[in-house]
Amino acid sequence: MSRTELNELGEFALIDHLTQEVAIHHQETILGIGDDAAVIENKDSCTLVSTDLLIEGIHFDLMYHPLKHLGYKAVIVNLSDILAMNAVPKQITVSVAVSNRFSVEALEQLYEGIRTACNLYKIDLVGGDTTASPKGLIISITVIGTQQKDKIVKRNGAKPGDYIYVTGYLGGAYLGLQLLEREKRIYQEHPDIQPQLGENREILERILKPEARMDIIRLLDKNHILPSAMIDLSDGLSSDLLHICKQSGTGALIEEQNIPIQQEAQLMALEFHLDPITCALSGGEDYELLICVPPDLHDKVKTLPSFYYIGEITAPENGVRLKTTHGNFHNITAQGWKHF
Amino acid sequence: MSRTELNELGEFALIDHLTQEVAIHHQETILGIGDDAAVIENKDSCTLVSTDLLIEGIHFDLMYHPLKHLGYKAVIVNLSDILAMNAVPKQITVSVAVSNRFSVEALEQLYEGIRTACNLYKIDLVGGDTTASPKGLIISITVIGTQQKDKIVKRNGAKPGDYIYVTGYLGGAYLGLQLLEREKRIYQEHPDIQPQLGENREILERILKPEARMDIIRLLDKNHILPSAMIDLSDGLSSDLLHICKQSGTGALIEEQNIPIQQEAQLMALEFHLDPITCALSGGEDYELLICVPPDLHDKVKTLPSFYYIGEITAPENGVRLKTTHGNFHNITAQGWKHF
Repeated sequence: MSRTELNELGEFALIDHLTQEVAIHHQETILGIGDDAAVIENKDSCTLVSTDLLIEGIHFDLMYHPLKHLGYKAVIVNLSDILAMNAVPKQITVSVAVSNRFSVEALEQLYEGIRTACNLYKIDLVGGDTTASPKGLIISITVIGTQQKDKIVKRNGAKPGDYIYVTGYLGGAYLGLQLLEREKRIYQEHPDIQPQLGENREILERILKPEARMDIIRLLDKNHILPSAMIDLSDGLSSDLLHICKQSGTGALIEEQNIPIQQEAQLMALEFHLDPITCALSGGEDYELLICVPPDLHDKVKTLPSFYYIGEITAPENGVRLKTTHGNFHNITAQGWKHF
Repeated sequence: MSRTELNELGEFALIDHLTQEVAIHHQETILGIGDDAAVIENKDSCTLVSTDLLIEGIHFDLMYHPLKHLGYKAVIVNLSDILAMNAVPKQITVSVAVSNRFSVEALEQLYEGIRTACNLYKIDLVGGDTTASPKGLIISITVIGTQQKDKIVKRNGAKPGDYIYVTGYLGGAYLGLQLLEREKRIYQEHPDIQPQLGENREILERILKPEARMDIIRLLDKNHILPSAMIDLSDGLSSDLLHICKQSGTGALIEEQNIPIQQEAQLMALEFHLDPITCALSGGEDYELLICVPPDLHDKVKTLPSFYYIGEITAPENGVRLKTTHGNFHNITAQGWKHF
């Protein structure tokens, strides 16, 4: 029997491969695998479901991620998937597996973060599972949301001419992570040296305690704006824009000069000898939304706070490209997180 | 800061402790933590949600659990939680984390089992997550079901005088596991000796490839029988009956002579010098249903296949007791799976 290594396929191809023969039995299952969340139709509205698995040593490092922040972030990243469908998250289940390295007090910290996020975003914690793990901490969260069928926004609705917006600064979470990793290495080599994190609150908060853009979903609703396509920026702008274009059957052109990057992130990129725009394109975990909007809604959208225009959806034959500040064009390729 | 070890609390007390301050924000969340599944009310029906985390080395041993069977079982144990609410499971999400010890072909086996269960029980696989793990295989499944609000059966509705039924033989899964563990030890000490599993198909199937009692839910519906309380036997008859009695505020009296045990399980218990009734009371993972039914429905229920009368719900002051075949009375104590 042949053996194919997991890293030969990569995460997205692996999911496609494993789920290609999945059959749908119920007509109320109106959207399955392949978007930010699944959609189940009820008589009056739809139920949306999304799930995420967070594993110590893969998705987080407890050396610099306090358990309370981790609990908070674990909820946020899940809410973000429901928001990315233009829906309202309402309930979560939380399953946790821990080795006996953890105490009850450590788990209390984790749940305090979970509760804090739930109270802030008005989310009901309705179930879960707690079990032992042979090694490390594992957190599995499922989030349930609701929205009327005609207001759900998928990844596949973008059309040439649509404007592309992002809802905030990009690359900060990636640079926050680089900083934490550097200070961890220094600490491991010289435990007497105190970490130098002081002036970088914003990028550290991005990676350690991100927020979900519930405010944007409310803003869209209040202003009667229905985007044509949407995704949350968890894997990175390049990777997530490619998802939109692939599923919508379009190209895209985004402009370097329009991509919002915090000054703090710019300075940190220089300190690491990294190109800030590369960090914004390839760095994941900012949890901003990428929103495609038909051109006739542009006048409405441009008055809204937090909407940064970065470019346009194009015909598929134009590909997915970046126009640099020097006027050059580059093809955008997926460089999202690779776990395997 | 003090340190409390996880095993000082145990699984159920730990969940209670961690979730005691959880607030509910939405009025459509009509049932949260503490039953087999959570319940969310829609206008015309309810959505039920349940989730389970299965971890290699804690919940399964790949030395004797083929991946295809494991995928099948992982779905079944989740469906069972929705059935235990008298609801119909319809969708699942499956998240899997694997170390690079696993090949793509190994994951294909796992998903073949998942797909087989989905097709047999008409379940739509609608989402999930696939990621790396630093060690071993982790499977997290969330299942979604539906039922009308007035037909949902919880754990807390049992009343003194209700009859208690189980839907099939008990203890088989536990004895199947003992057999597999014994043959594993022998194999590890003497790799040249072939495992002796031959004549024990039924108890092995119980542990390796259990079924969920969807047929019972259909039968109840067809015969217009609404149980007063229900739970699935995942932790063991003792532990699960105690859940019903605690949440209903009742006692119970069950009779040893009524508890259904397969002949194959009886013989295997003797081979292991175990009391068959202890295996039936304390062994988990049979995934039969424990059903409490008001006395006026007894005439209807007793004609149904798969309904084994085992005793009655009593007043709380009588406690939860077993009457032995010799006429003695024993208090029943929780001896469910202890993972920590």
